[in-house]
Amino acid sequence: MQSLIDAGFKGGIYPVNPKDGEAFGARIYTSVLDIPDTVDYVISTVSAQCAPQLVADCAAKGVKAIHFFAAGFSEIEDEEGKQLESEIIRLARQSGIRVIGPNCMGLYCPATGLSFAVNLPEQSSFPKQSGTVGLLSQSGANSTYCIREASARGVYFSKAISYGNASDLNEADFMEYLTYDPATKIITAYVEGVKDGPRFARALKVASKAKPVIMFKGGATGNGVRTAASHTSAMAGSDSLWDSVLRQAGAIRVYSIEEIVDVVSLFLHMSPPKGRNTAIIGWGGGAGVKAADECSNAGLILPVLPVEIRQTLKNIYGTEAGLIFGNPVDVFRLTGSEKLVDSIKVIANSDQIDLLIIYVSFDIFSLTDGKDTIKTYVESILRLNSVVDKPIAVVLDSHPTDRSKWLASEAHVRLSEAGFPVYPSITRAADAISKFIQYHQWHQRNSETDD
Amino acid sequence: MQSLIDAGFKGGIYPVNPKDGEAFGARIYTSVLDIPDTVDYVISTVSAQCAPQLVADCAAKGVKAIHFFAAGFSEIEDEEGKQLESEIIRLARQSGIRVIGPNCMGLYCPATGLSFAVNLPEQSSFPKQSGTVGLLSQSGANSTYCIREASARGVYFSKAISYGNASDLNEADFMEYLTYDPATKIITAYVEGVKDGPRFARALKVASKAKPVIMFKGGATGNGVRTAASHTSAMAGSDSLWDSVLRQAGAIRVYSIEEIVDVVSLFLHMSPPKGRNTAIIGWGGGAGVKAADECSNAGLILPVLPVEIRQTLKNIYGTEAGLIFGNPVDVFRLTGSEKLVDSIKVIANSDQIDLLIIYVSFDIFSLTDGKDTIKTYVESILRLNSVVDKPIAVVLDSHPTDRSKWLASEAHVRLSEAGFPVYPSITRAADAISKFIQYHQWHQRNSETDD
Repeated sequence: MQSLIDAGFKGGIYPVNPKDGEAFGARIYTSVLDIPDTVDYVISTVSAQCAPQLVADCAAKGVKAIHFFAAGFSEIEDEEGKQLESEIIRLARQSGIRVIGPNCMGLYCPATGLSFAVNLPEQSSFPKQSGTVGLLSQSGANSTYCIREASARGVYFSKAISYGNASDLNEADFMEYLTYDPATKIITAYVEGVKDGPRFARALKVASKAKPVIMFKGGATGNGVRTAASHTSAMAGSDSLWDSVLRQAGAIRVYSIEEIVDVVSLFLHMSPPKGRNTAIIGWGGGAGVKAADECSNAGLILPVLPVEIRQTLKNIYGTEAGLIFGNPVDVFRLTGSEKLVDSIKVIANSDQIDLLIIYVSFDIFSLTDGKDTIKTYVESILRLNSVVDKPIAVVLDSHPTDRSKWLASEAHVRLSEAGFPVYPSITRAADAISKFIQYHQWHQRNSETDD
Repeated sequence: MQSLIDAGFKGGIYPVNPKDGEAFGARIYTSVLDIPDTVDYVISTVSAQCAPQLVADCAAKGVKAIHFFAAGFSEIEDEEGKQLESEIIRLARQSGIRVIGPNCMGLYCPATGLSFAVNLPEQSSFPKQSGTVGLLSQSGANSTYCIREASARGVYFSKAISYGNASDLNEADFMEYLTYDPATKIITAYVEGVKDGPRFARALKVASKAKPVIMFKGGATGNGVRTAASHTSAMAGSDSLWDSVLRQAGAIRVYSIEEIVDVVSLFLHMSPPKGRNTAIIGWGGGAGVKAADECSNAGLILPVLPVEIRQTLKNIYGTEAGLIFGNPVDVFRLTGSEKLVDSIKVIANSDQIDLLIIYVSFDIFSLTDGKDTIKTYVESILRLNSVVDKPIAVVLDSHPTDRSKWLASEAHVRLSEAGFPVYPSITRAADAISKFIQYHQWHQRNSETDD
């Protein structure tokens, strides 16, 4: 209830508990049946054993939908849980009630003020800001994690649905809902297993034709499949089958919640690159060698810069030792704001380069001059939006010291807010960009086939 | 000079600069030749152009070794750099002077007070504490990063060597040195390329027979190889060749500085597991499903716990909903200290389990009860050392909120200090453990062959 109030829920809220009294200034009703108004939606925190009685009450009251938080249903080993789940679904279907869950967190919809954030004194509730990303998640903890990770990186949601055991409304229903929801422009999903494989595959195909679909499949190995069964009673299915279902639909497969946000950031903040030719500009040395390896491993191409561009860079910087004009271009160490922006413009203008990765490392060298150096970097990058028309991603690498992490995190917030896709490492950026390019190539190919 | 003073260097320090005067209370000499005492070791910050004159002066003075910080030698495109490097080496060899670098950070040896930490007001110098880990790193930034990352996780060094262009003393010399250095029990290395492949392969083989060798090879792809050449003029060599050289030596190959520390932590804090059968105990739900997948991908086995152990766990916990007694075992959410220790003891006693991963997530649930819950977890884990004799690793997962990160970091320090190998994610722990087991199996097999 605190969560709904914090989120500014716009409808009436009626607490129900066998013990009457008051909660948050509202009268507590001892039964759903005693509520004087009509009730659309019930959020239930009763235990599995009490659930059938609640459904019966809701049916008598004319409730349209119930969300069950409680675990203890089909996901547990005992037969009783499975029977209880069948029973609530049987009762709900008799009276046309739709069920979300059980064993889940339910709905987050900032526009209407629905939320399931667990509020803590030192932890903020979910953002009130609406975004264009829809999320369906079989795991409650993963949905919470995803919402918090995304908002820390400037990514916001239209709706998030944590649906647990999917006993009535399931992943295919929610996928269809998000497909036709005009507030949702990008669909993200954490799914452990599906109730009806062919139906979900069809829903996924339709969804992916309409908007980008980014999916993290839990339970990819034998151990994961078994664990998914005891977590949400999910039938996880074979991993190679999932791979082809996702590929045939043109959806993007990712392997963590962080990676969901990595890829979403590109759909929100980057125009599709024309190809895979990448220039890395920034921090060099051993970090540059690793950056080159990691981009190659992700399938990006780092062409050697044309001779005339290398010469222009040398004219800008002089022949100071320690700079590298290959690709990665190592120019950050000694550079002022003007030189940096000029050199990035020169590189971006090459028709051999499709996209740029700006790589700032909050390491000892950049810290030597204190905070001003970082400020120069950040302000130079902020200026790029107006002078460079190639896709740009930013990587902010931090050293394992508090100060370095704090500076990186401050820069991250400023650059995210300015509309840059920002990553904590080259690998994360390169993997996301590679999938982003692949997505656009796939859909371009397939729309041509359709014509 | 500040760095040496901070590190408590035990010998005399003589600043040299064409402008005389005082530095840190010591007289500045205008030439090496003016120093009244004998000089063993010169740390040079002169530019590449001035380096030959310095070597000539050092030869006249009878100096034994010089470390050159400066870049601008064989790693740059201009022919002049290569000529300067040849020249200093020619002069040094004439007079028996050994050279470290150029284009590197030099030596860190806490026991004698040698250090190259760049000291900043808000950033600590390198640890004064000696450890048993030796490091040789072709990259200066990577060596600094490794020392800072390691000490943040309770791992300390005997000696670290940043050697850059390896113009005289090279990776094979330093590998041999660490092999026979009694203070070094574990050798770690970041290498971009080698001067003499067959010699380094032999040195690696001898080293790996004597102590664990953990190596991060920079320049594994075409782009990385090219970047390594402009970074330290290294000939990086083919990646598959490197793979076989490392495999045939029984060395451990890793792919980042963090992974060096991940693996070292096991050699310092874990006894070798008898096999790959792993129990994960702790946080479940979607995180448990992901944990199971990631362990499987790393090559660890998660056996289903025997029926009698599952029954014992049910007796300890009752049949509270939301708990999962499979493997991963999800018991953290509701547990007190006694129950947790008891259940871990039961699982550790199974002869089907070779090692344990304790998985604490600093997520919303564990935070709901505030800091006391975390304290209970940490204290329970601290008690395990005395009651469980199977290898244990700890994973501390944090949510993207400041409070969650802070709690995880506090717990990390306490558990590292108590001698647990601690990781920020299941993937990182599982990958390191898998390599650790493989290392012991390889060396067991090969020592049998030798007998």
